[in-house]
Amino acid sequence: MSDNFNSQFFQHVDASVPQYVAELGEAVAIPSVSADLQTHLKDIIQMEEWTKSYIERLGGSAELLPNPKGVDDNGNELPPILLAEFKAADNSESKKTVCCYAHLDVQPAAKEDGWDSDPFVLTEKDDKLYGRGSTDDKGPALSWLWVIQAHRKLGVDLPVNVKLMFEGMEESGSEGMFEAIQILSKEGKFLSDVDFFCISDNYWLGASKPCLTYGLRGLAYFSCSVQCCEQDLHSGVLGGTVHEAMTDLVQLMASLIDSSGKILVPGIMDDVAEVTPEEDALYETIDFNCESYKKENKVASVSNKLMYENEKDLLMARWRYPTLSLHGIEGAFSGTGAKTVIPAKAIGKFSLRLVPDQDPKRIEKCVSDHLNKVFASLGSPNKMNVTLLHGAKAWLSDPNHPNFAAAARATEKVYGLLPDYTREGGSIPITTAFEEATQMNVCLLPVGACDDMAHSQNEKYNKKNLVNGVKVLGLYLHELGELKGPKPSECRCVELTPEELMEPGAFMRGFKCKCFM
Amino acid sequence: MSDNFNSQFFQHVDASVPQYVAELGEAVAIPSVSADLQTHLKDIIQMEEWTKSYIERLGGSAELLPNPKGVDDNGNELPPILLAEFKAADNSESKKTVCCYAHLDVQPAAKEDGWDSDPFVLTEKDDKLYGRGSTDDKGPALSWLWVIQAHRKLGVDLPVNVKLMFEGMEESGSEGMFEAIQILSKEGKFLSDVDFFCISDNYWLGASKPCLTYGLRGLAYFSCSVQCCEQDLHSGVLGGTVHEAMTDLVQLMASLIDSSGKILVPGIMDDVAEVTPEEDALYETIDFNCESYKKENKVASVSNKLMYENEKDLLMARWRYPTLSLHGIEGAFSGTGAKTVIPAKAIGKFSLRLVPDQDPKRIEKCVSDHLNKVFASLGSPNKMNVTLLHGAKAWLSDPNHPNFAAAARATEKVYGLLPDYTREGGSIPITTAFEEATQMNVCLLPVGACDDMAHSQNEKYNKKNLVNGVKVLGLYLHELGELKGPKPSECRCVELTPEELMEPGAFMRGFKCKCFM
Repeated sequence: MSDNFNSQFFQHVDASVPQYVAELGEAVAIPSVSADLQTHLKDIIQMEEWTKSYIERLGGSAELLPNPKGVDDNGNELPPILLAEFKAADNSESKKTVCCYAHLDVQPAAKEDGWDSDPFVLTEKDDKLYGRGSTDDKGPALSWLWVIQAHRKLGVDLPVNVKLMFEGMEESGSEGMFEAIQILSKEGKFLSDVDFFCISDNYWLGASKPCLTYGLRGLAYFSCSVQCCEQDLHSGVLGGTVHEAMTDLVQLMASLIDSSGKILVPGIMDDVAEVTPEEDALYETIDFNCESYKKENKVASVSNKLMYENEKDLLMARWRYPTLSLHGIEGAFSGTGAKTVIPAKAIGKFSLRLVPDQDPKRIEKCVSDHLNKVFASLGSPNKMNVTLLHGAKAWLSDPNHPNFAAAARATEKVYGLLPDYTREGGSIPITTAFEEATQMNVCLLPVGACDDMAHSQNEKYNKKNLVNGVKVLGLYLHELGELKGPKPSECRCVELTPEELMEPGAFMRGFKCKCFM
Repeated sequence: MSDNFNSQFFQHVDASVPQYVAELGEAVAIPSVSADLQTHLKDIIQMEEWTKSYIERLGGSAELLPNPKGVDDNGNELPPILLAEFKAADNSESKKTVCCYAHLDVQPAAKEDGWDSDPFVLTEKDDKLYGRGSTDDKGPALSWLWVIQAHRKLGVDLPVNVKLMFEGMEESGSEGMFEAIQILSKEGKFLSDVDFFCISDNYWLGASKPCLTYGLRGLAYFSCSVQCCEQDLHSGVLGGTVHEAMTDLVQLMASLIDSSGKILVPGIMDDVAEVTPEEDALYETIDFNCESYKKENKVASVSNKLMYENEKDLLMARWRYPTLSLHGIEGAFSGTGAKTVIPAKAIGKFSLRLVPDQDPKRIEKCVSDHLNKVFASLGSPNKMNVTLLHGAKAWLSDPNHPNFAAAARATEKVYGLLPDYTREGGSIPITTAFEEATQMNVCLLPVGACDDMAHSQNEKYNKKNLVNGVKVLGLYLHELGELKGPKPSECRCVELTPEELMEPGAFMRGFKCKCFM
């Protein structure tokens, strides 16, 4: 890598912004909402085919792997997984291989939810690109393609082999990805020669300073249904004569958490790791401010009060302690106005964010036992059912790993400053899945800002982040190419047991030895 | 009225069923959903114009009265009210006048809610006509037109003057109707010469025996909103750092009612009238069965348990005690699947059914005081707001009134048996409004069966009820025509004060004297 390349590359990227915006617009216009497969499976597939065709135009090989899970629990067909490869032209066998993961599906969105513009029409305003999926995760996904395109146009060889694994179910539990990762990690398969993973599907801690992320919370997403009869009833005609499902469900939901944020389910806090002095010290220097956080997240204008009003407690609540959120109720009246209905079946949705060392299976048992006990105490004749829809362990990596070091140097060359090392409240369950299956390190390299409003109304991607994101991802490939030592995927100095791998902060295979240090 | 007329009339109605079904299909196809005026105002107006044109083809006069309230609280334009008149051809000045009320708007409906067929396509199966509005209230509304049409085709004069007052906002609080009734009851206006009112907008107690209804519960429909920030947040990224609106809202909703059906709001039961021995005795003879009720309402296959398992307690819970139903939450996640969202603003919807002598204004204060107290105890910084969306007093009439007697005789001539005298759990607030404004009696003359599933999935209207409904409404006009005595609207023997009028079971003007007994 030469400074000459960097400067040509940066110029090319800067000149290509209108093209990038137009192409991101095409992608956002495809409503690939994975929460509603009945309506949108065809859109997810269209989005995958759109991307596959782009990859092939760039000279990469690509295939749509049929989803190994086939159908979801409701019998809906699941979308395939896009696998692609760009080989380093020169002596590719000896080059290291990075696998970049992203997702092409999006969260649900509707203008009526309070968007200022059509969520599926990319709308530029004040150098911000508004649209569902702009930052989560279509913008970052396309950035990898733009990096490859820049190399092609500049006539520069790729410094590493680049594999892409893009899925279409991330917003709905990454169904089929876990099976795919297992299958593809076997000897000779797509993932077996991958040396590094990189995921760009989270956000900076703030709006201006880049970061690398070495920890994620896990997830246990539940549905709790109560049914009182086969179909909805008129609350005037029948109110007072049936045991209403909503009455029970609201009691159950109210038994989960109180307004101070305390989780009321017994046993939930038992396995939460203690804060060590080393960990505690990490929080002292992070660039974070509660007042800005209130403004960025539009809390300031309403309650203007956070769960904690000092930075360390707030970050710990966000990163290293579990939380429980009530998301809503399916099957009840959710429209505007007044409907005098007794819902026949109401399904509460809630989730816990998990931290080391919580196990989703144990959490499922705690929640299920608790709700069954509360329900029994209600003395209701209705039918109640608790289901864990998605479970994922928390993830904790080592910010000193060479994969992180490469990302840090790339960031420094673009932004002129070293990134913060952060954890995240959110979950990217496939992070752990990649590490467990391959023993290779995953670096989370966010390119979007904290106020991008992923999952919310008016999701956006700053044009500045788009441009710098392409630059950072491009230089990251070159930093990986310059790493010394053997390929991590071929090193057999150390094999970790699955238990060792799941220890928070475990080094990956190839890095517990000293080959690369 | 002669037996000859009855037999010709019945034959004509029987022969016209294919026409009735086709016309009801046209009406059902217009999605006149008043809960969503932004989308459906045009459909409500189209439905009103369709009906007006039908009336004019029958030789009636009709006008669309601009809604006196103009716009609703959200600034949406409100639909007009349809006023029509068919004069008795022969000596109409001396004839009595009946005003028939119905509504042309419907409850929301969507195939995804669990309908077996498109709710806006009238679908016949096993002699049942499925479709939103088939029984509530388009079928009964059109029946009045079919009665007039039969008289025209048979060349028979109307025995009374018939006025129609059809509105388009009944399912959303009858907005504008109360103002219209006030205005139209003044000297010389549309309602000032009405002698009897008839409303066909409720249901039989069972599936086979007709009834007349002399009491209705009132309604207090509330929304309770909690807001924590300006827009939805990602529960992974931010969970644990903000005071979530849903957490508070679910605590508030859980504080309203317990699973045994006990209303937990202090003061609610204070004004409920005591059961008198006379009232108690009325319940002994009513044709009603708990086991059938479970099956009709599809409770049997799920919980198979009602709030009370004996007929009298169950009917009292349904008719003469208040209840509270939780309808759902607006603004939270209500779709299928999993969405990891922290809703910014969640709006709980619930309503109480009121009974004599509860006053909606006092109930509003009880509920508001209670929720404010509970919210204060939560110690939440969020914004909470309680609003009474609709309030209506309960209504209780006298089943011995000549208006009821006419309806009873008409029923007997069609069905061969006298109707039960029932009360209803539901509310038709304009019943009280008509009586208070005009001092004329309102008879509730249901034509649909208890299992018609108004407001629910798979709403239907039995073809048999449609046919017999037209016959009963037709003969009712003739029974009214045969009533002796002066016109009630002209009798000045007794004027009741508003307070006297609101006494449960108050006789109407013209019937407290002996002119008509």
